[in-house]
Amino acid sequence: MKIARLGEPGQEIPVVIAADAAGVERTFDARPVTTRIDGGFLAGGGIAALGDAVARGDLPELAGAGALRIGSPLDRPNNVVCIGMNYAAHATESGALPPTIPVVFLKPNNTVAGPFDDSPIPPLSAKYDWEVELGVVIGREASYLGSVEEAAGAVAGYLIANDLSEREYQLPGAAGQWTKGKSLPKSTPLGPWLVPAAELDANKLRLRSWVNGAPRQDSSTADLIFDVPTLVHHLSQYMVLEPGDVILTGTPEGVALSGRFPYLQDGDVVELEITGLGRQRQKFFRAGPTGTTRQEA
Amino acid sequence: MKIARLGEPGQEIPVVIAADAAGVERTFDARPVTTRIDGGFLAGGGIAALGDAVARGDLPELAGAGALRIGSPLDRPNNVVCIGMNYAAHATESGALPPTIPVVFLKPNNTVAGPFDDSPIPPLSAKYDWEVELGVVIGREASYLGSVEEAAGAVAGYLIANDLSEREYQLPGAAGQWTKGKSLPKSTPLGPWLVPAAELDANKLRLRSWVNGAPRQDSSTADLIFDVPTLVHHLSQYMVLEPGDVILTGTPEGVALSGRFPYLQDGDVVELEITGLGRQRQKFFRAGPTGTTRQEA
Repeated sequence: MKIARLGEPGQEIPVVIAADAAGVERTFDARPVTTRIDGGFLAGGGIAALGDAVARGDLPELAGAGALRIGSPLDRPNNVVCIGMNYAAHATESGALPPTIPVVFLKPNNTVAGPFDDSPIPPLSAKYDWEVELGVVIGREASYLGSVEEAAGAVAGYLIANDLSEREYQLPGAAGQWTKGKSLPKSTPLGPWLVPAAELDANKLRLRSWVNGAPRQDSSTADLIFDVPTLVHHLSQYMVLEPGDVILTGTPEGVALSGRFPYLQDGDVVELEITGLGRQRQKFFRAGPTGTTRQEA
Repeated sequence: MKIARLGEPGQEIPVVIAADAAGVERTFDARPVTTRIDGGFLAGGGIAALGDAVARGDLPELAGAGALRIGSPLDRPNNVVCIGMNYAAHATESGALPPTIPVVFLKPNNTVAGPFDDSPIPPLSAKYDWEVELGVVIGREASYLGSVEEAAGAVAGYLIANDLSEREYQLPGAAGQWTKGKSLPKSTPLGPWLVPAAELDANKLRLRSWVNGAPRQDSSTADLIFDVPTLVHHLSQYMVLEPGDVILTGTPEGVALSGRFPYLQDGDVVELEITGLGRQRQKFFRAGPTGTTRQEA
């Protein structure tokens, strides 16, 4: 079962993508069960309720689903919590030692975008970079968890994310804080799907990215320095994780920051894929002075 | 006119505190105009509508207002954007040079608390610290603003904030990212009031803090390295500021990080005041292993 949201920004319809009785994958309208995929839905047993409704045949097929825009599979999260340098080879390519404790930063929640939305390169940006990441969606409040074992119960599901990053804004000055390079408009494409935690083993998923069809990143979540339960437990000692929050678990080697590849340019196409979590594709354009209009060449 | 929210957490009633026709300050129930003080309210001309309703005598006095808890004057913001080391003397006491560009970080939006709520010291914290700050509430979307002059129009109002910070979590390791020290439960008391921007000149406000009645910070917003319009303009180049977002503009010298004062202990009382924006008072207690129970001495 996959959960998605289809339609124009702000008007997305929640859907379930699942096999029908004949084993054919179909897109069902989830609105008989919920209008939102958010913290309240996740904490209230919404995923189980959707599964039951599909099994009972209670959800109608959504006509014309294939023609609709694919949005983020979640309504706007409260908080987008990110882990830095969580793959050893990426820490090395970034010029740093692998961390001994998780590196944590935040992205504004209004950076979330759909997985196929055109993506603006900031007007003055010279170093806009891609980062394929395993995203974790929290389903239950987690605060001062007593053990790593408790943490698994707080995870509702997984999704694929691009943690777009502007390296000149992120790195120099500003007391080393990365925020300005991690906050740009539409810099967090999520989805296409939310896959329930019970249906996916997140410990050995292949993550890949391409720019204009040429391979860039190709690693496995088996190489995470800090795995998902460890991260959830650790974060809960410093903040209250809430249902609907998203944790981006870090990116593997193969980004432009390494110096091995050029940064993103007007017209570039980035594709990302994680086993079981689907594929994203963004066409990049140089934003005009207002940041919203396409700059003509 | 001051806007506040009174009542238990999650059940706050919006109110306006203003002089009646006889010049006596009274607390009026704002619910005939709005049930929420949030981005939609601010962007939709809500402050002007409240002022009109008070002037026409359309709002009833709220009975028993003085007995109610005072909450954050805002419903939960989308994003809490913070500026670091924005007073030269505080940068010096922190062991850093004054920044040449604004230092930016984020706090999770679920850290917001009421201005008089008891405040938990994290279970393992040794260095929990106070920071009085001028808070700016955004009233209009601001993205890639063309000039500093445009920025003033994006400000809805001001409030007082305590940016509680755990220095051991903030400073060492973690690639220098401050997030873990800035995300703790209830670490952002806001209020008691939101004062509309038109009613306050934010350029020369005295900020003070005390611990157990002894003075700690005593400065003026005139000493801000980057003033409010400069910050709004700058931030808008890196993120989309939205109505209801809060910017904490940085703290002046006189915090425990300086080495001149002890960090917060069980039973300590912190008070904060900014001219025209009122006063906060928090009693601190050492949180138990769950982070929610009071540890008995």
